[in-house]
Amino acid sequence: MLYKFDIKTKERDMVNITKLLIKAIKNENFQNGIAIVYCPHTTAGITINENADKAVVHDLILAEKKFFPKLKNYLHEEGNSDAHLLSSLIGVSETIIINRGKPLLGIWQSIYFCEFDGPRERKVYIKLISEDKVNPKRTI
Amino acid sequence: MLYKFDIKTKERDMVNITKLLIKAIKNENFQNGIAIVYCPHTTAGITINENADKAVVHDLILAEKKFFPKLKNYLHEEGNSDAHLLSSLIGVSETIIINRGKPLLGIWQSIYFCEFDGPRERKVYIKLISEDKVNPKRTI
Amino acid sequence: MLYKFDIKTKERDMVNITKLLIKAIKNENFQNGIAIVYCPHTTAGITINENADKAVVHDLILAEKKFFPKLKNYLHEEGNSDAHLLSSLIGVSETIIINRGKPLLGIWQSIYFCEFDGPRERKVYIKLISEDKVNPKRTI
Repeated sequence: MLYKFDIKTKERDMVNITKLLIKAIKNENFQNGIAIVYCPHTTAGITINENADKAVVHDLILAEKKFFPKLKNYLHEEGNSDAHLLSSLIGVSETIIINRGKPLLGIWQSIYFCEFDGPRERKVYIKLISEDKVNPKRTI
Repeated sequence: MLYKFDIKTKERDMVNITKLLIKAIKNENFQNGIAIVYCPHTTAGITINENADKAVVHDLILAEKKFFPKLKNYLHEEGNSDAHLLSSLIGVSETIIINRGKPLLGIWQSIYFCEFDGPRERKVYIKLISEDKVNPKRTI
Repeated sequence: MLYKFDIKTKERDMVNITKLLIKAIKNENFQNGIAIVYCPHTTAGITINENADKAVVHDLILAEKKFFPKLKNYLHEEGNSDAHLLSSLIGVSETIIINRGKPLLGIWQSIYFCEFDGPRERKVYIKLISEDKVNPKRTI
């Protein structure tokens, strides 16, 4: 119950990946448990935020640049320590409750892959942990 | 093993919800595993921090306002993008280890529901994932 | 499947604790599931970030001091509210996918214990949640 997906990102980006989780759940006929959505990169992250007004995504990216600019005394020669910092502040994973075959997100919530140092080709892992005693596939 | 609780919040608030987790654990006679404490809102979050000196909660709310003020060039017309940012920085869930029927928190740690855009009526979900082979309720 | 480890930290510190997770996995012959790496302290945290260039760790600690200095109007008399804030921003746990007996980290990722108010003697908990139906130890 481990899925890997490929994502293409822009320089600074928030890619709505909720549909990838729904795809994994449906493919397993997964019913109840939790999902770990995991980013295996150190200059990107995973967050949950508003899906309705796209201005929120705009404002989040704006705020990240404003509040965490590149510092002159950063030592890392790649020059992307601002992206490393955001990866630790936003975090590289989210844990989502799955209830009766659906992610238990709030009505305004979607799951986003956050790019802090793109454009790049990225990966995301989704792990499903069932609380059902038997394989849900076989209970049908 | 999914619980939903209602919470009322002030404008900026940190509501200690540790007792809600303890309630869920006791109700299930849950012994060993993990709990996901989840906030289904995009302008609120969940964190773990000090429970002894209430000045810490004061200082955290003060710091959030100071370090992440509203920006003039935010586009989101609801005017609460500062709250959306804090939701992504603090995060909307915490995963807590449950050991022998108790949350394995540090002695100074409590779980807080963080309100960044209240006052509101909010919800919190608690999901328990057992590592025991059989239903702990039935082992008694 | 719960492990406790002791860690000694410097004033501000990021201690690579990936090897502790690998130790726990090997000791259990754990195959597939998730691991919760948990910090039971309110002025420390857990993060995942770069393991190759040590300048990244330098830059993260530099940035944390720069962007979140001590505020004059903090009330908490211990004088370490800046550390409490970082604990909530960085977070006190990480959830890691375990696949075929190995943590599914990105090639550049390691797990760090973050000290924001040391030097101190600290603890870290690691909880393993298996998705295998039977105890993996007994399947060999």
